Amino acid sequence: MKIAIVGIGYWGPNLVRNFVATDEVTSVGCFDLSSERLKFIKRRNPSITLFNSYDEVLASDVDAVVLSTPVSTHYPLGKMALEHDKHLLLEKPMAASVRECEELINLADKRNLVLMVDHTFVFTGAVRKIEEIVKSNLIGDVYYFDSVRINLGLFQHDVNVLWDLAPHDLSIMDYILQRKPTAVSSVGVHHINGIEDVAYLAVHFDSNLIAHFHINWLAPVKIRRILIGGSKQMIVYDDMEPSEKVRIYDKGVEATTQEGIYSTLVQYRTGDMYAPKLDNSEALSLMAQDFVGAVQRKHKPTTDGDAGLNVVRILEAADRSLRNGGKVVKLL
Amino acid sequence: MKIAIVGIGYWGPNLVRNFVATDEVTSVGCFDLSSERLKFIKRRNPSITLFNSYDEVLASDVDAVVLSTPVSTHYPLGKMALEHDKHLLLEKPMAASVRECEELINLADKRNLVLMVDHTFVFTGAVRKIEEIVKSNLIGDVYYFDSVRINLGLFQHDVNVLWDLAPHDLSIMDYILQRKPTAVSSVGVHHINGIEDVAYLAVHFDSNLIAHFHINWLAPVKIRRILIGGSKQMIVYDDMEPSEKVRIYDKGVEATTQEGIYSTLVQYRTGDMYAPKLDNSEALSLMAQDFVGAVQRKHKPTTDGDAGLNVVRILEAADRSLRNGGKVVKLL
Amino acid sequence: MKIAIVGIGYWGPNLVRNFVATDEVTSVGCFDLSSERLKFIKRRNPSITLFNSYDEVLASDVDAVVLSTPVSTHYPLGKMALEHDKHLLLEKPMAASVRECEELINLADKRNLVLMVDHTFVFTGAVRKIEEIVKSNLIGDVYYFDSVRINLGLFQHDVNVLWDLAPHDLSIMDYILQRKPTAVSSVGVHHINGIEDVAYLAVHFDSNLIAHFHINWLAPVKIRRILIGGSKQMIVYDDMEPSEKVRIYDKGVEATTQEGIYSTLVQYRTGDMYAPKLDNSEALSLMAQDFVGAVQRKHKPTTDGDAGLNVVRILEAADRSLRNGGKVVKLL
Amino acid sequence: MKIAIVGIGYWGPNLVRNFVATDEVTSVGCFDLSSERLKFIKRRNPSITLFNSYDEVLASDVDAVVLSTPVSTHYPLGKMALEHDKHLLLEKPMAASVRECEELINLADKRNLVLMVDHTFVFTGAVRKIEEIVKSNLIGDVYYFDSVRINLGLFQHDVNVLWDLAPHDLSIMDYILQRKPTAVSSVGVHHINGIEDVAYLAVHFDSNLIAHFHINWLAPVKIRRILIGGSKQMIVYDDMEPSEKVRIYDKGVEATTQEGIYSTLVQYRTGDMYAPKLDNSEALSLMAQDFVGAVQRKHKPTTDGDAGLNVVRILEAADRSLRNGGKVVKLL
Repeated sequence: MKIAIVGIGYWGPNLVRNFVATDEVTSVGCFDLSSERLKFIKRRNPSITLFNSYDEVLASDVDAVVLSTPVSTHYPLGKMALEHDKHLLLEKPMAASVRECEELINLADKRNLVLMVDHTFVFTGAVRKIEEIVKSNLIGDVYYFDSVRINLGLFQHDVNVLWDLAPHDLSIMDYILQRKPTAVSSVGVHHINGIEDVAYLAVHFDSNLIAHFHINWLAPVKIRRILIGGSKQMIVYDDMEPSEKVRIYDKGVEATTQEGIYSTLVQYRTGDMYAPKLDNSEALSLMAQDFVGAVQRKHKPTTDGDAGLNVVRILEAADRSLRNGGKVVKLL
Repeated sequence: MKIAIVGIGYWGPNLVRNFVATDEVTSVGCFDLSSERLKFIKRRNPSITLFNSYDEVLASDVDAVVLSTPVSTHYPLGKMALEHDKHLLLEKPMAASVRECEELINLADKRNLVLMVDHTFVFTGAVRKIEEIVKSNLIGDVYYFDSVRINLGLFQHDVNVLWDLAPHDLSIMDYILQRKPTAVSSVGVHHINGIEDVAYLAVHFDSNLIAHFHINWLAPVKIRRILIGGSKQMIVYDDMEPSEKVRIYDKGVEATTQEGIYSTLVQYRTGDMYAPKLDNSEALSLMAQDFVGAVQRKHKPTTDGDAGLNVVRILEAADRSLRNGGKVVKLL
Repeated sequence: MKIAIVGIGYWGPNLVRNFVATDEVTSVGCFDLSSERLKFIKRRNPSITLFNSYDEVLASDVDAVVLSTPVSTHYPLGKMALEHDKHLLLEKPMAASVRECEELINLADKRNLVLMVDHTFVFTGAVRKIEEIVKSNLIGDVYYFDSVRINLGLFQHDVNVLWDLAPHDLSIMDYILQRKPTAVSSVGVHHINGIEDVAYLAVHFDSNLIAHFHINWLAPVKIRRILIGGSKQMIVYDDMEPSEKVRIYDKGVEATTQEGIYSTLVQYRTGDMYAPKLDNSEALSLMAQDFVGAVQRKHKPTTDGDAGLNVVRILEAADRSLRNGGKVVKLL
Repeated sequence: MKIAIVGIGYWGPNLVRNFVATDEVTSVGCFDLSSERLKFIKRRNPSITLFNSYDEVLASDVDAVVLSTPVSTHYPLGKMALEHDKHLLLEKPMAASVRECEELINLADKRNLVLMVDHTFVFTGAVRKIEEIVKSNLIGDVYYFDSVRINLGLFQHDVNVLWDLAPHDLSIMDYILQRKPTAVSSVGVHHINGIEDVAYLAVHFDSNLIAHFHINWLAPVKIRRILIGGSKQMIVYDDMEPSEKVRIYDKGVEATTQEGIYSTLVQYRTGDMYAPKLDNSEALSLMAQDFVGAVQRKHKPTTDGDAGLNVVRILEAADRSLRNGGKVVKLL
């Protein structure tokens, strides 16, 4: 299988390194508008080939195109790739709007091509372990999903803090909860360059479940933490912990109604905590293998176009809410 | 000065202990509907006197009444106290509605009586130090105020998690920022007994400032942390730290616009961090002294009726937002 | 059962509170050389009786004497109590020398009296859980026992930092390992008032096991942590953690010798970590019940004279090592 | 300046990378007994040249030799390099014995060659900041230096845990304290392959100062922490902290003697804590520049042969103490 990676910015070199190391990939080619970046990536990976233009990529015999370019280009470049019968892997977020995502999904469907979005976090040992626990119903009914991703992280961005950072957490939520949200509300402020640098995002569901995200480029401390509360157990996923990133608390609340007593009796339950051993494989390597496997063996990738769309649908609605001062925006 | 403390539940005994130990207080009396609780408090504080009814309290020669009773009783009992020319100290939250708060404030004003709300956290060394730093403009313009107060904390409550816990953080915010909020939005869910046990509250201001509160009775870990981001410095107040509760980070973001370059250049600035020494005096003791001082020397207490009203105004609007699925509610 | 508590200093009031609350204890009396302290303790516990002298205690009908007095007085006062046929509970450390401990043990034996030492930590949920795990051989062979107990803790002491703080950790070690040490070495320095304020203590055993203690009154941070390394599992007991004080790591090292290869192959093993739920009963209350039970039902207390002697034997040898610049001192 | 790096094992590639990037270094050559490793390093650094034998290195026109080989080879290979008039940089520990170190020092002196030991930690922003603070006497008299360096770190080693890990901490101590130790004692145990895997090392000084090191390959948690206690301030250097690695506590103990009162009055003093901003330059890069600068501008390197000898002198004495069950070994 032959792959072309387009866009050698911050993340591109990691994609190159991992696809070069992936079995079944026989050739990796690269293209970037900057010849400096192309020289740089060739020095680091002498085995790769270089393309001189995106047209050359499309005209070549590569089986798949990987786009690690600015979000606004995902749709036009991705559409061209699909139209040239290339399988497509897109960096997150998938595209700049729901409409763009849907068009890409439809096009890939029609042409029977694999369309995948690089939601890298979904491939970490931590998230896969949490998904396993939630799916097995060990934690019971999910009560809330609370995510905080903050630190001093602002630099020149063309998108606001939600589009930049929330896709990580939204893709984790989508993968773990596997539930359709019904509405979104978001508030935020901007201080430096006119785009939101601090934002809060609430995602509502039909049932009595809430997901909430605090995303912040202007925080003095680095926090990457997800809490998942369940009726039987509760999970803390602290990505800043060097080890024991996932902790399962055998804690809960029990409500009983005694006859003749009007108010509900509520009791705590506190048991053991445990931190399961996690698979330490590099997430990006597993993602690359997943993509190659989907192409080779013609199955759905783990994070397909629908997964990408689920994230963008929330982001698009969040933008609308932000522009309306926190108004609740229904998802269709 | 003679004081009567009414309501000897969870918090009442702490009030009794501190008023007994306060200079200028010559007599502390107690009343509770439960004679068991009265016996208990007398055993612990042999010097106190007991009342047999609230009427007896009102008819007595006490100068001030302290109400540590359920929120719903603050207004009727408080009103009676003021009408009997007693100075009044109310537990937080001040009352069950804005209208109740305003009536109590007006009544106290008319009768020239001291009306104070026990916002204990305002009297901690940590909060007073933060207020000093913010007021002195060391941190520059305030960008955001982010508060998290969560743990496994549910038991039989008549009010939701916002009314139960948020007054702590709202009173801290009110004291530190000294700014009038313009709107409120809140989302939450309930799982156990029909009242919200997880809630998020956003408080908006005219300027580009946002305050946000995560309040949760169903969390496996205990977090009590406030982040305050400023243009020059940032503050982390972690109440769970045994020492160094307040940390000041000399960190910031600088935006410069270079001629001929369209995009803004954004740069980090990272300097020293320091944790100032904090006064370790018991906050409740300082609060008690503040009340006694206000009565004796006829000045405003630090957390007066207006401070109490500011908190209730936000809570009332938050309830309205909660009942409307997160709708933004304007504050007049 | 009637009990007299002698010495109402820092720890005495806790003993009084717990014995007053212990079933089967019908009367608690107190004595202290300071009438101020006696007045204080009577105010706090109106049900107790006061003694005017130690002679009065001895002449009374109390069944047991509890000594919470300076270490140097344990032997003379304890001996008198035993000679008056009183059961005896001593604060830690048991006495000022091995010889004193042995005499008290012999005297109690001869007169068939209970002799107990208040090694409070042995009664904590954390230490009892660790003992259970080690005894069940879940952690395999014990490789080392490493204890750190440090913070800014110096005030006017008549004993050095080892005699003041190490009894906590030595009694925990004695209870958990149940092994006879063979030698001791200790180094330390003193800076303030001529007695060691920083000390390191190594305790050697016959087998390939070492125990080590870092005890320090001059540290800027508070650390109370014990590591226990085993061939199968390892334990971290962090007493400063508000919850999850005991963590069991399924980690280990495996050595295999392959034929034809001279060097040993060493491999890590890393598995889950778990933090067992701990009993939160107040340790001192359990200790008091243990003493009362031993007296009432004529069995050995959990921390008897031999347990007290084991600790003092190490402390005495450590002093000899300290005075000889760290020389290794054999234990007989 | 031309440099040859010999030994491309675990650390060698880092040396290559840094010397390749150092100004004034015009050529970097490599040699290793394994041609695999040579191929590997050439692929990573295409600009380097390869040597076929150590003799070829010695016969070449390189100005300096860098030895990143097993400790036992430092002396023979280093001696040959000096005899061929090459400046010499040795990995830590400098050599296998005091005698070897002294011979290398003398030889370098005689031939006017630079002899440096790669004590990398000395070049970290953290250690340089601490040295600055201690030298400026801000912390007052140094009371103790306590170091803990532990985790699950055992693999196939030819030296015990002290020779493997303690050079880091001993070189930090040597650099910061700049004091001659007078004696050493060490205890340890071995469980896996016959060499100590857990060890404690005490280093004594003339004055009332002690340094102590806990070094452990069998610990479930990773701790890298140094405490330095002073009469005015205290320092915690926690290398596992992602930021704020160095914290200065304005804490201390004050002893006063009041007339007529025999016992010393001791009081705490607690003030602010601060964490100074640290230089984040890569330590190894600064070390490489230091070596090149010493060669080019004929001055002493920061960590010269004497610094290397100071570390080996303690390790050699520690080995003697270990073999004698913890006996105190005088340093001449």
